[in-house]
Amino acid sequence: MHFADKLHERISKIDSRLVIGIDPYPERLFGESSPFARAYPHFTPEKLLIEFCAILIETAEETACAVKPQAAFFESMGLTGIAVLSACLKAARTKGIPVIMDAKRGDIGSTAAAYAKAFLDPDSDFFADALTVNPYLGPDTLEPFARAAAKAGSGLFVLVKTSNPGSGAFQDQILEESGERLYTKVARAVTDLGAANIGRCGYSHVGAVVGATYPSELKALREVLSSSYLLVPGYGAQGGTAHDVRHAFRPDGAGAIVNASRSIDYAYEALDEGIDKDAIRRAIYDAARKAQKDLNNVAKPTPST
Amino acid sequence: MHFADKLHERISKIDSRLVIGIDPYPERLFGESSPFARAYPHFTPEKLLIEFCAILIETAEETACAVKPQAAFFESMGLTGIAVLSACLKAARTKGIPVIMDAKRGDIGSTAAAYAKAFLDPDSDFFADALTVNPYLGPDTLEPFARAAAKAGSGLFVLVKTSNPGSGAFQDQILEESGERLYTKVARAVTDLGAANIGRCGYSHVGAVVGATYPSELKALREVLSSSYLLVPGYGAQGGTAHDVRHAFRPDGAGAIVNASRSIDYAYEALDEGIDKDAIRRAIYDAARKAQKDLNNVAKPTPST
Repeated sequence: MHFADKLHERISKIDSRLVIGIDPYPERLFGESSPFARAYPHFTPEKLLIEFCAILIETAEETACAVKPQAAFFESMGLTGIAVLSACLKAARTKGIPVIMDAKRGDIGSTAAAYAKAFLDPDSDFFADALTVNPYLGPDTLEPFARAAAKAGSGLFVLVKTSNPGSGAFQDQILEESGERLYTKVARAVTDLGAANIGRCGYSHVGAVVGATYPSELKALREVLSSSYLLVPGYGAQGGTAHDVRHAFRPDGAGAIVNASRSIDYAYEALDEGIDKDAIRRAIYDAARKAQKDLNNVAKPTPST
Repeated sequence: MHFADKLHERISKIDSRLVIGIDPYPERLFGESSPFARAYPHFTPEKLLIEFCAILIETAEETACAVKPQAAFFESMGLTGIAVLSACLKAARTKGIPVIMDAKRGDIGSTAAAYAKAFLDPDSDFFADALTVNPYLGPDTLEPFARAAAKAGSGLFVLVKTSNPGSGAFQDQILEESGERLYTKVARAVTDLGAANIGRCGYSHVGAVVGATYPSELKALREVLSSSYLLVPGYGAQGGTAHDVRHAFRPDGAGAIVNASRSIDYAYEALDEGIDKDAIRRAIYDAARKAQKDLNNVAKPTPST
């Protein structure tokens, strides 16, 4: 099945445009001062990491259109972290939750093909429904990813305009050739890359990452990226609001998915006391449910009266 | 010890500017049609991979200033590949060979810090002497890498002008603000990023990747990147020659290191027959020795007559 159709279907089925980011910060999960670790006494860091992923996947079953594990945090925990990442990808996929592997890979030619094999080949330990990729090396370097993704029924999300404070330094540069900004040129390359593989829903398998923290750029890029799903990070802990992301959606409420990581993953840290296993699950679930509703409120067409 | 000083010292000590890339292509190493696999009957893919790394590290001891494992190929072999990568990094470092981890990572804020922890923290399973990083997300996203590298005595190589045919699509764009190309702006950010941490040798711990396949850009960037070591890929199988990379070096023969991967790693494939273990080692060693000499010929100042 085509990636965009799979995503589109999932969004309708559970009525959610929320992506739950799986961002295991070691300093928040492990150690004596961690409320998470205190709720699971005698758990090793590995078992804590497995439990953290399991809670988020369980939450996503009812509240999210996808989960997005962030490779960096798993890699920072070495071989153990990467083994848990592999298990986490499989666990989510087994439950039918689309997995967006946030690894921001990018390299040239045959090396790009090797990364594609790692994340977009169904036989790989790291197979995912979609992968984030970095465009700096040029559109030719994205082609091996796009081919592998199309073959596997997976998707890509290409970095276009990122959510960090300094994303403008290179991405916002105005180009002499066209008077357009670099991110617009990258966006056009994204459209081209997916043009030959449009799903029934009208979107290609090549999406784009556009940050919630830049609402006017998000609105402009929604137009340029006419056949791409947008993956919108920066909502929640980074400061983007549901109001900020409203222009990411098409009038029919489709076309974008919005990621929240820390505001959901660590929702229990806001509790004053009594942070036990149940309280952790409940706080995470409630935060996800609230994000789901907030996003639906801005995304879905107002019913006519 | 400062990364640039460590590299500088190694270059002098073994008189080599060659970096041996460790690029294990599964289709060339495994399977019945692989001459490598046929030379090691009864070896599992894992053992073949370990042996391949060991031969290249042994070769590098005498011929190369550094080795550069390419993360993509190891990741494409799943958990097994990554475990071998970790062992390979340790084996090279134990022999005193600087390891440049070619992972081209890049992400924002605390996620960048997590990648830095994975590759630039001495306690990590993936600790390396240097890491390649991607600048698209902005200079602010490179700072966590630069800080972690400085602390560990490691280095960075930031992608500036890559060696692939399509690298110009974004990197060569002329910017309205300055009339300069994007890669020049990125190069200036690289200089700034390392400015506060210059080693005794006069170079900072933040280097730049500039492809051998673009000799005139390489010459221009050598000037802009006044305090950076250049890591030059694209020599050998990608078509760059020793003549093409001559401008990467300073008049004193320092300032650049040149990577060759496939032309060394698979040198034995050019043999007509008799590809046994010894022939493989010899072909790889001879190819590395030849590359070392060719690079020295263009890099080192001609002795005055």
